[in-house]
Amino acid sequence: MAVRIDADRLRARLMELSEVGRTPEGGVSRFSYGAEHVAAVRRVARWMREAGTEPAVDSWGNLFGIVTGEVGTLPPIAAGSHLDTVPNGGIFDGALGVLAAVEAAVAFREAGIPPKHPLLLLGFAEEEGTSYGVGCLGSLGVLSRAPAPEALHDAAGRSAADALRVFDTGLPRRPVPMPMAAYLELHIEQGPVLAAAGMALGAVDAIVGIARTVLEFVGEANHAGTTPMEMRRDALWGAADLVSAVRALARDTGGRAVGTVGRLHVTPGATNVVPGRVEVSVELRSPDASLLDTLRGRVESEAQMCASRHGLDLQVRAWRSDAPVPLNRSIHDEILAAAGDLDWPIVTMSSWAGHDAKVLQAVVPAGMIFVPSMGGISHSPREQTSWEDVARGAQVLCRTIERLDRSQPL
Amino acid sequence: MAVRIDADRLRARLMELSEVGRTPEGGVSRFSYGAEHVAAVRRVARWMREAGTEPAVDSWGNLFGIVTGEVGTLPPIAAGSHLDTVPNGGIFDGALGVLAAVEAAVAFREAGIPPKHPLLLLGFAEEEGTSYGVGCLGSLGVLSRAPAPEALHDAAGRSAADALRVFDTGLPRRPVPMPMAAYLELHIEQGPVLAAAGMALGAVDAIVGIARTVLEFVGEANHAGTTPMEMRRDALWGAADLVSAVRALARDTGGRAVGTVGRLHVTPGATNVVPGRVEVSVELRSPDASLLDTLRGRVESEAQMCASRHGLDLQVRAWRSDAPVPLNRSIHDEILAAAGDLDWPIVTMSSWAGHDAKVLQAVVPAGMIFVPSMGGISHSPREQTSWEDVARGAQVLCRTIERLDRSQPL
Repeated sequence: MAVRIDADRLRARLMELSEVGRTPEGGVSRFSYGAEHVAAVRRVARWMREAGTEPAVDSWGNLFGIVTGEVGTLPPIAAGSHLDTVPNGGIFDGALGVLAAVEAAVAFREAGIPPKHPLLLLGFAEEEGTSYGVGCLGSLGVLSRAPAPEALHDAAGRSAADALRVFDTGLPRRPVPMPMAAYLELHIEQGPVLAAAGMALGAVDAIVGIARTVLEFVGEANHAGTTPMEMRRDALWGAADLVSAVRALARDTGGRAVGTVGRLHVTPGATNVVPGRVEVSVELRSPDASLLDTLRGRVESEAQMCASRHGLDLQVRAWRSDAPVPLNRSIHDEILAAAGDLDWPIVTMSSWAGHDAKVLQAVVPAGMIFVPSMGGISHSPREQTSWEDVARGAQVLCRTIERLDRSQPL
Repeated sequence: MAVRIDADRLRARLMELSEVGRTPEGGVSRFSYGAEHVAAVRRVARWMREAGTEPAVDSWGNLFGIVTGEVGTLPPIAAGSHLDTVPNGGIFDGALGVLAAVEAAVAFREAGIPPKHPLLLLGFAEEEGTSYGVGCLGSLGVLSRAPAPEALHDAAGRSAADALRVFDTGLPRRPVPMPMAAYLELHIEQGPVLAAAGMALGAVDAIVGIARTVLEFVGEANHAGTTPMEMRRDALWGAADLVSAVRALARDTGGRAVGTVGRLHVTPGATNVVPGRVEVSVELRSPDASLLDTLRGRVESEAQMCASRHGLDLQVRAWRSDAPVPLNRSIHDEILAAAGDLDWPIVTMSSWAGHDAKVLQAVVPAGMIFVPSMGGISHSPREQTSWEDVARGAQVLCRTIERLDRSQPL
C-alpha cells in the first residue's frame, strides 16, 4: 500500500472549490461556460499543475491534465467527474470525483512512484444538462457524440457555440486524448441505499437505463356543476389511476426498477371545470434492459385500462429510451479488490442516476465508486457526505488506479 | 291564453345580438364594460324602447327598462338575465333570458293587455365573473352587496371603477328600482339533464351551494432514479388517491352532489424529480346544505387518509362556501301552472350552476325556467338549444308573468 492520499488536503480543496458559485442557501450554482465555471476550471487547473500536468480544455470546455507515464506508449488511465452543478446543488456532486482524481495523482507523485500509464485527470462540463438540456454533454463531446453546439440553447436563447466562444479560462485548447485504458469515477451515490445499509463504499456494476414518455388522457372539459357524475369524461380520473398504477408496477419489481410521475398537467385547469385533457410524464429506470422493456409495455396497457375505465381517449407519445449500461466487469472487480486491500467493506450496487462513466463506457472500460449521501439527498444544499467517507472513497480510487496500472495487459 | 310571444322575432334578435362579440370559432366574447358590451347594451336598449320602456343603466352597468303598470303603486315584476359571456361562449347563455323578457313585454303590448304591475326588464353585467373574478357582480351590485369597484381589477390591472367610468352607452344612469314583486329568469340548463330525459322545460326549485378548498399534500422532492420506491414520500401519490376519493364520495350521493378536482399543481413538476408538493382544488356542489357540509368533512378525512397512507403531510385551506338557495316555492308553482296552461310537460330540477336569480332571491321572490342544452354543452361555441325549445321557454316565461300579474296579492 504505497500510495496514500492526503484526506485533509482533499477536504480543504473541496471546501475551496465549493466557494465558487456558493449560494446564499449554502449550495453551489456553477453553470457550464459561465463565470463560475471559468473560475472553477482555473482553480482546479492550478491543482492539476501541482500534480505535474499541463492542464488544457477541449472544444466542449472539458478540463483535463495528463501526468506522464513511465511507459510512453501506454494509453492513459483516466479518472475524474464533472465541475458543473444543478442550480443550488451540493458541494460533492461532481467536484468530489474531479478533486479525488487530482489528489490521487498528487499522491503518486508524493509517494515517488511514477505510474507506468499516463494518468488523465478529467473535469467534465455540463454533466447535469442544466444549461442546454442534454445530460453528460461534455463527455458526449469527448466521444464526438454531442449535438452541434450551434443547435443547443440556454434559457436565455444563447447557443452553446456562442457561450464556448467567450469561455476564456486562459488554458490552451486541445482535444482530450483517446483512446484511454480505463475511466474511473468516484461519485456520491445521490440515493439512500449505502447510508441505509450502513456501508461506506459501493462498486457500481451498471448504470440504469431510463425510459420516458408522456401520456395524454383526453376526455371532455365540462361544467363542474351541471355535468352529473355519471356523464363525465374527466381526464384527471384516468391520470390519477395511472399514477397509482405506475407506483404499483415499480413496487412489484422488488427494487429492480423505479417508476415516477413527476409532471402532471391539467387542462383547462380551473377549479370549476371538469378536466378535459391531462398530460402525464412517466419515467422508468432499471439496470435490467428486458425488465425496462416489459415495464414500458405494462405502463401502456395499464394506461389503456385507466382510459377505458373512465371513457377517455389515450395518446402515448414515443418513448425516449436510454438502455442500461453495464460497467466493465474487470474494473468493477479491481475496485472490490482495492477496497479489500484496504480492509474496507464494499458492496456492489447499481447507479440509478446517469453519469459521465455511462457515456464513456461505450468506448472505454469504465468503473465507478460510490460513497454515501446522507439521507439520500442530492441536488440540494443539504447534500452531505462525511469526510471519513470522502477519504475512503478517494483512497479506493487511488488504490484502484494503482492496481490497474500494475495489471498486465490493461 | 291571451299573450303570445313571437318566436321568429325572438330568434332573429338572438341571432342579431350574437353578432356582437362574435368570435372566429362561432362563439361570442362579450366582456363587461368593453366595446362589445356597450354595443350589446345599445342594441338591446333599442328593443326595450320598442317594448315601451325608457332604458337606462345603473352604476354597475346593468341595463334595465320599465314598462309602466296599470296600477302605479305595485312593485314591478322583473325578468331578465345577463348580457356578458365567458370567453368564446355560446349565443344563448344569458342573452336568451334578457331577450325573452323583452319579447314578453312586447307581446303584452301587441296583445293590447297592459299588465297591472310594472314590468322590469333586466340585462345584468358581469354575471360570469370573467373580467373581475366575482360571479353575479351586476346583480350583487343591484343589492349593494358587490365589492367596491375600485377593489376589482381585470387581467390587465384596470379597476372596474375605471372601466365603468368610460362605459359610455349613451343611456341615462339610474339605479335599478327596488323592491321588486318577483324576479323571473329563463336560462339554458348548461347541463345534460333535460336533453337526456327528453324534456323541453324545467322549473328550478333550488340553486346549488358550492364549497371550494385547496388541499396541499407535502412529501419530499427527491431524485426519481436514486430514491427507492419504498423510501419515497411522493406528494402526487396522495393527491391521485384524493382525486379518486372525491369521485367516489360524490357518486355515492346518487346524484345529490357533484365533486370535482379541476386544478392539480405539481411541484417541482419535473419528469425526473419525485413530486414534493401537490396542490389540489376540490369543488363540491349540492342543493342540500347539510349534505354539502357532510361532504366537506368527508373530503377532509379522506384526504387525511390519503396523506397518511403515503407518509405525507396535509394542509387544508379554509373552505369558501356558498350555501344552496331554494328559490321561491310559489313562483316555482306558477311556472309549473304556466306550462300546464300551455299543455307542455315540465320537470322540477335544481340548478347546478350559479345565476343572478340566486343573488336576487335573497330579497326578491325569484324563479327560474330552464330549457335544454344539447349535449349539456355550455361556455363553448358548440352550446346549442333548439329554436323550438327557445320558443317554449319564452312562452312559459311570458305566461308566468301573466299569471303572477293576475294573482292577488303578489
